[in-house]
Amino acid sequence: MKDLTHFAISPADIDAAVGRLSGHIRRTPLLSSPFLDEIAGRRVFVKPECLQHTGSFKARGGWSAISALDPEVRARGVIAFSSGNHAQGVAWAAKMHGVPSVIIMPADAPTLKIANTRALGAEVVLYDRENEDRDEIGARMSAERGLTLVKPFDEPMVIAGQATAGVEIAEQAAEAGIDSAEVLVCCGGGGLTSGIAMALADRAPCLRVRPVEPVGFDDAKRSLAAGTIQRNDRLGGSICDAIVTPQPGNLTFPIMADLCGPGLSVSDDEALSAMAQAFLRLKIVAEPGGAVALAAALWRGAELQGDTVIALVSGGNVDPAMFQRALARLD
Amino acid sequence: MKDLTHFAISPADIDAAVGRLSGHIRRTPLLSSPFLDEIAGRRVFVKPECLQHTGSFKARGGWSAISALDPEVRARGVIAFSSGNHAQGVAWAAKMHGVPSVIIMPADAPTLKIANTRALGAEVVLYDRENEDRDEIGARMSAERGLTLVKPFDEPMVIAGQATAGVEIAEQAAEAGIDSAEVLVCCGGGGLTSGIAMALADRAPCLRVRPVEPVGFDDAKRSLAAGTIQRNDRLGGSICDAIVTPQPGNLTFPIMADLCGPGLSVSDDEALSAMAQAFLRLKIVAEPGGAVALAAALWRGAELQGDTVIALVSGGNVDPAMFQRALARLD
Repeated sequence: MKDLTHFAISPADIDAAVGRLSGHIRRTPLLSSPFLDEIAGRRVFVKPECLQHTGSFKARGGWSAISALDPEVRARGVIAFSSGNHAQGVAWAAKMHGVPSVIIMPADAPTLKIANTRALGAEVVLYDRENEDRDEIGARMSAERGLTLVKPFDEPMVIAGQATAGVEIAEQAAEAGIDSAEVLVCCGGGGLTSGIAMALADRAPCLRVRPVEPVGFDDAKRSLAAGTIQRNDRLGGSICDAIVTPQPGNLTFPIMADLCGPGLSVSDDEALSAMAQAFLRLKIVAEPGGAVALAAALWRGAELQGDTVIALVSGGNVDPAMFQRALARLD
Repeated sequence: MKDLTHFAISPADIDAAVGRLSGHIRRTPLLSSPFLDEIAGRRVFVKPECLQHTGSFKARGGWSAISALDPEVRARGVIAFSSGNHAQGVAWAAKMHGVPSVIIMPADAPTLKIANTRALGAEVVLYDRENEDRDEIGARMSAERGLTLVKPFDEPMVIAGQATAGVEIAEQAAEAGIDSAEVLVCCGGGGLTSGIAMALADRAPCLRVRPVEPVGFDDAKRSLAAGTIQRNDRLGGSICDAIVTPQPGNLTFPIMADLCGPGLSVSDDEALSAMAQAFLRLKIVAEPGGAVALAAALWRGAELQGDTVIALVSGGNVDPAMFQRALARLD
């Protein structure tokens, strides 16, 4: 077995996160369809984290980080920078713990996301992207109120929380009689990818994680190939916005470099088609960034090994207009 | 506890079905969202059987019926009349048992449903609704090949199979700390409704089942109110086609009459709005007939009792055009 003791988190951190999350986080099922197997030419299993609380795996990391805080520190509240799934995960976990949360969002974030985050109990602070520095606002509020910053991925307790999805995959693969598979994970900053990779290296080393990204935003894939952290040239222009980040994290990359197989990338069109297949065959709602791993499972078979693939659908927070673009691919 | 020994099935039949289905049928999760709680004004839990194999609960009944057959009888194959979810449930269960299935469908059934049923391994026999008698065709084929008819609801082993969803609800309610609730079930012929009612009467008598139907096709509701089986005036014209039947079954009605609370009915518009909320808040795909129980949970609160409701989403086999009608309600 690989040496897992020199990373930002240890297997014991994952065990502890499993304990803290138990009874609070959903154990999402493992789905499949003979129609997807036929497209892929191999067995396809899907772990739908879109069914998780708040519609994405981010509820795991949010809960893990907040539940790990010292009670007195936690009581003062938490703060996060996010206009998306991380915001909702942190707001939900804070509310369930009965502590305040502040979410700093750009003033031009979609109205629905702002409303949803507020409805989950967060105080939303809007800033002007052009004229204000969000880090300065966050630092000032943290200092004034003693808020703890919950980073989206490069934070040990967040990584340990996302790893609990990997613990479930290890258990569910054993239940389904899967003794070898590639596990495709939608990858942004690498919190989910590295967490699952750690969990599987510890509990099911026959399952190998491979990150999946949008074409043109494949910093993890290029970083793994180069052996050092590589940046994306641009950050805008992908419909898979939920998983576009400047570069892999300083804590997540060493884990991925040691434990993951090569990265994969798929086009926006393939992500939309995967959303359509998830609708048609699995009856789940995937967002574009949440569908890239399933897209790779279905249409990147030549780059995969073995007769079984497990694809994680990381989130389902998609607006109706974008979902209709995906459905149109079934006409 | 109620006397459960004088019905078409017994609690022991349900226990046996649980054993036969174990490892083959998905244990669908119990979902929830604070946004749905707010609409309903009470806690709402959703049992998404759209995530079941073949996209509906019918896989449970199909598996139960086929697995209960004598091996020699089973080997000759099964036959069913259906253009919908029952067809797919029976075809899938037959394929998984390695036995042939014949599905008799009207020639004007949607092409996609015919293709899907064939892809699941069934021999599809089409008949002309105007000029041919499907029962005659079925009887002739059964006699020639020794096929066993699997009826859609008025069949003890089918009812026992659908009851396994109720067994899971009893377990999951206990896990979630729910000690009293109304359980809303989408109701066609009553196989699912009566099965769940039996399972809960045996295992969780604090949970009471209430059938939900489309307005204008509320034969179960009127039958329960009258105390005798009532028919629908018409069978066409509802978008909730999956759950429209002429009348409750002769086996299912006595169970419902003894164990269920009063029926509820919702409009097509409410079913579409419930599909939209299931998309937005739960990230699941519901078909119109599969969404009526959730619609009642959300918008028939004045007719419900208690602070907690569990709604079963019975299926998700909906075409993209109908789903877009539901999404349009979010604009």
